[in-house]
Amino acid sequence: MSSSFEVWMKEVQARVEAALDHLLPKASLAPTRLHEAMRYAALGGGKRVRPLLAFAAGEVAGADVARLDIVSAAIECIHAYSLVHDDMPCMDDDVLRRGRPTVHVQYDEATALLVGDSLQTEAFQLIADHVLADDARVQLEMARILAQASGSRGMAGGQAIDLDAVGKSLTLPELEFMHIHKTGALIRASVALGARCSGGAGLSAAELEHLDRYARCIGLAFQVVDDVLDYEAPTESLGKTAGKDAANNKPTYVSLLGLGRAKEMARELRDEAAAALARLGGTGGRTQRLAELADFVVLRRF
Amino acid sequence: MSSSFEVWMKEVQARVEAALDHLLPKASLAPTRLHEAMRYAALGGGKRVRPLLAFAAGEVAGADVARLDIVSAAIECIHAYSLVHDDMPCMDDDVLRRGRPTVHVQYDEATALLVGDSLQTEAFQLIADHVLADDARVQLEMARILAQASGSRGMAGGQAIDLDAVGKSLTLPELEFMHIHKTGALIRASVALGARCSGGAGLSAAELEHLDRYARCIGLAFQVVDDVLDYEAPTESLGKTAGKDAANNKPTYVSLLGLGRAKEMARELRDEAAAALARLGGTGGRTQRLAELADFVVLRRF
Repeated sequence: MSSSFEVWMKEVQARVEAALDHLLPKASLAPTRLHEAMRYAALGGGKRVRPLLAFAAGEVAGADVARLDIVSAAIECIHAYSLVHDDMPCMDDDVLRRGRPTVHVQYDEATALLVGDSLQTEAFQLIADHVLADDARVQLEMARILAQASGSRGMAGGQAIDLDAVGKSLTLPELEFMHIHKTGALIRASVALGARCSGGAGLSAAELEHLDRYARCIGLAFQVVDDVLDYEAPTESLGKTAGKDAANNKPTYVSLLGLGRAKEMARELRDEAAAALARLGGTGGRTQRLAELADFVVLRRF
Repeated sequence: MSSSFEVWMKEVQARVEAALDHLLPKASLAPTRLHEAMRYAALGGGKRVRPLLAFAAGEVAGADVARLDIVSAAIECIHAYSLVHDDMPCMDDDVLRRGRPTVHVQYDEATALLVGDSLQTEAFQLIADHVLADDARVQLEMARILAQASGSRGMAGGQAIDLDAVGKSLTLPELEFMHIHKTGALIRASVALGARCSGGAGLSAAELEHLDRYARCIGLAFQVVDDVLDYEAPTESLGKTAGKDAANNKPTYVSLLGLGRAKEMARELRDEAAAALARLGGTGGRTQRLAELADFVVLRRF
């Protein structure tokens, strides 16, 4: 990883934090407790992997960064809502997230429920409230992409499959089907949305297809690496409770493939992502950040 | 109420049921348990008051009924999601809804959480997926209206205020502030969305403003009557657990104003709604259904 990549990454992370801070309802606005809790859930860090992907895809498309800010904030609202609800007692019952008490611990369960609900709405409001594409029909398509990725045929559906899988032995295709929905869909949407924030004619259908192929590989790689990290890392460096998957008897890439083969699979997916970028037009130019992000996702240690 | 009104009402209710049945993911589609539970939550009746308002407002605007079907289905997805989450143990902890076990009782809490989450997403997907206005910018405005009405500055915010109010004594303006958000916002949105489903130039700003005034009165009247019915009706005729508000020590219009004054307030709101319609252009013509709905909301016995 180049030092310029690290600078770029910190810059995007700071932009997204500032955008969320600016765009989310102020904690002084009624209902104040709800708004404070929404900010608690969405602000204060996280890796911001999805916004990084949106910004990197936007670089390919020559996108407007102010539009990428909005799209990234919307994506992070969806992501944050899913974490808040997943952490609740009736789901994963987790008490620690990003090194801090989860929302239902810090506030209460009812507030956590409403925080998740409201952050989801906020995401769609952000997409509808701001000009994100020169053609309003493209912007409606962006709302459609985000909805498709988030709902029962995307992220929430993956969560439901995950619930059903506890204590069961899944085949590799079944595990993949789950992750393609649970984490893959929103990662794909992040790339697709970033690529649509351009001011002009935008990318060609073929270019969007190469980007989507990249995004699908990264989405899967991300989950494989998550499973590896959950298996290997101590709780303090992970910022969330480690080893939960094994404790819950949940199938993972590590439990299904073994540690060595899981790591190999992550590297293969990175190579496949790089091949998709090569078809888009070289590695040194407009696809540099996407290539670096592929390495980052696979090589990260947190 | 004229018999033609009852026929119209049944017709709209049947259309909305059919639209939801057609538009919601089939129960045979994976994840099947989630999709089955989403259908359980959204199908099978309810008064469909919000769709009735959308269709009646659509009649004023000369709207396309196929578009009103989509908009109504989206509104009902939001409404159904809010009921599923409100019924959960960490909120109202209710076991009965529309005479049937609530979703977390029929399925489980985790599924109820995901059902609500997914129904909310479905609403925005419906708005983004179909052509609802000749101008895509108007359709984006429709997404914005629905989001504004549903989120922390609308329905979910009202729910949060309601939570905070348990066991407290509210003033009348505080109670009104809560209901304007909790139930009023989505009722207003129903009228606003129905009025925007026309094919042509649409209604004037002044006409939309009269409709909005009508909608605000109906929204408040609806809640006042709900409080009266909750106070008066036995559980079996209500289709949900009666007397919960009093049992939970929640402030209501009845507890604040007394039964007689609450009923009077509902009638006054109906008159104010009728006055707004008169400004729109007579009671016999295109505003007939809206006028009948105002009577229906105030005079209903369930």
